[in-house]
Amino acid sequence: MRRSERLVDLTHYLLENPYQLINLKFFVARYESSKSTISEDLEIVRAIFERQNIGSLATFPGASGGLKFTPAISNTQALVLAKDILRLMAEEDRILPGGYLYLSDILGTPEHLKKIGQILAHEFADSRVDAVMTIATKGIPIAQMVAEILNVPFAVVRRDPKVTEGAMINVNYMSGSSSKVENMTVSKRAFSIGQRVLIVDDFMKGGGTLNGMKALVEELDCRVAGVGVFVEGPFHGSRPLTDYRSILRVDKIDLANHTIDAEFGNIFEEKLF
Amino acid sequence: MRRSERLVDLTHYLLENPYQLINLKFFVARYESSKSTISEDLEIVRAIFERQNIGSLATFPGASGGLKFTPAISNTQALVLAKDILRLMAEEDRILPGGYLYLSDILGTPEHLKKIGQILAHEFADSRVDAVMTIATKGIPIAQMVAEILNVPFAVVRRDPKVTEGAMINVNYMSGSSSKVENMTVSKRAFSIGQRVLIVDDFMKGGGTLNGMKALVEELDCRVAGVGVFVEGPFHGSRPLTDYRSILRVDKIDLANHTIDAEFGNIFEEKLF
Repeated sequence: MRRSERLVDLTHYLLENPYQLINLKFFVARYESSKSTISEDLEIVRAIFERQNIGSLATFPGASGGLKFTPAISNTQALVLAKDILRLMAEEDRILPGGYLYLSDILGTPEHLKKIGQILAHEFADSRVDAVMTIATKGIPIAQMVAEILNVPFAVVRRDPKVTEGAMINVNYMSGSSSKVENMTVSKRAFSIGQRVLIVDDFMKGGGTLNGMKALVEELDCRVAGVGVFVEGPFHGSRPLTDYRSILRVDKIDLANHTIDAEFGNIFEEKLF
Repeated sequence: MRRSERLVDLTHYLLENPYQLINLKFFVARYESSKSTISEDLEIVRAIFERQNIGSLATFPGASGGLKFTPAISNTQALVLAKDILRLMAEEDRILPGGYLYLSDILGTPEHLKKIGQILAHEFADSRVDAVMTIATKGIPIAQMVAEILNVPFAVVRRDPKVTEGAMINVNYMSGSSSKVENMTVSKRAFSIGQRVLIVDDFMKGGGTLNGMKALVEELDCRVAGVGVFVEGPFHGSRPLTDYRSILRVDKIDLANHTIDAEFGNIFEEKLF
């Protein structure tokens, strides 16, 4: 293979295998080229990946070393993605009877979902996430996309146990908005002791459900690596949890005029843009 | 940018924007290079994409033309992916009390999920799919991954209506395994009239649920583009539908010996390998 051809294949290979330590010998065999030739190729890839904010290419020395591609976006890119989603939120017909928001179009479109996933993965990139947890059903697409980008497994919490989940861990929790005691359960074998679990959901009202998942993580002998939500809704009073990160915040849903007051969530509060 | 740098960026750009018609002018501006230079770059990318089974790069002539990247795998690659998944199915501890199969580990691991999605997307690549439909909750990860690869939206059918889904279309259907009349419902606005809908699910027993979704597609004034399942389970008698495509088939679940008889599904029956 010529260099130009190797670069195309190398770029594809790295993008398809993020977060994996790849020994240089693998590419030496794949391209039947010398170590120094491959190293030069990788330098070109690394420079473009960094310049275009595709991600970083780290090198680990030694016999068991190699290289690892970590996808990454910049704070500025995260904000650009969030602006796209904010624009979608302002669309008409999003307000449903009772003041509920229709989000299924956003959560069912891979292009939009990818933006949500990239922002959350960027936010928790340094949180050493081992697994992602969410609650059925609307959190699933977000959990899956974040898990895909971080290349970790994800598990779905349910309101009721299911025969296809094996032994389950169950907790009761207080719903923040209705003050009722509710139930949630997750497959025990979906997590290993000591794992760092990122909790995600599509919408946070009172925060009771997210708090329930935090309790569930503790019952699994795991640790909460972070809590991330797509949309933080309007809520009066104090929430049972404060350490969440949100992409968007909806302050007011005006049923009469069919308008929504949506803004960037707290992910973008502390960042300098 | 030098050619080597352009090739890295071009490869990344195409992989991130599949199924989209991109005008050559876009790359002329992006790289500040001539049309002929870009065309030469694209020839190199096209050759490697084809040789490595990454996908095809089609060119459309004219002012409104451009190029379009379509990800694709070969029949042989699909079989290699299916072999990996078949190996996972043979793992111990997969059989649950009552003869149910634990699949949540496979459906919660992006790496495995991607293989399932690639096989189904490959199978229905020529079916002109406009949207993907599945039923909550375990079909969601599969629907999302297929939708992501085909770059189309997906929607989730539920057993009960939800306040966050807006107006819904509802059908009753006969469960194939228990012969009970059941209910399923989906958001009306998730589909447009005349769309070609691919129905997917994780597990098929009698096929009643899939048949219900077919009825739902018709009530939405859409057309069924295909029916794809991850695992086809053991079933005695005749199924209400025959035109499904399966990745794996489980013929027997031996509770006493904790073994599963799993084979390739009918996707691989007619293909020459």
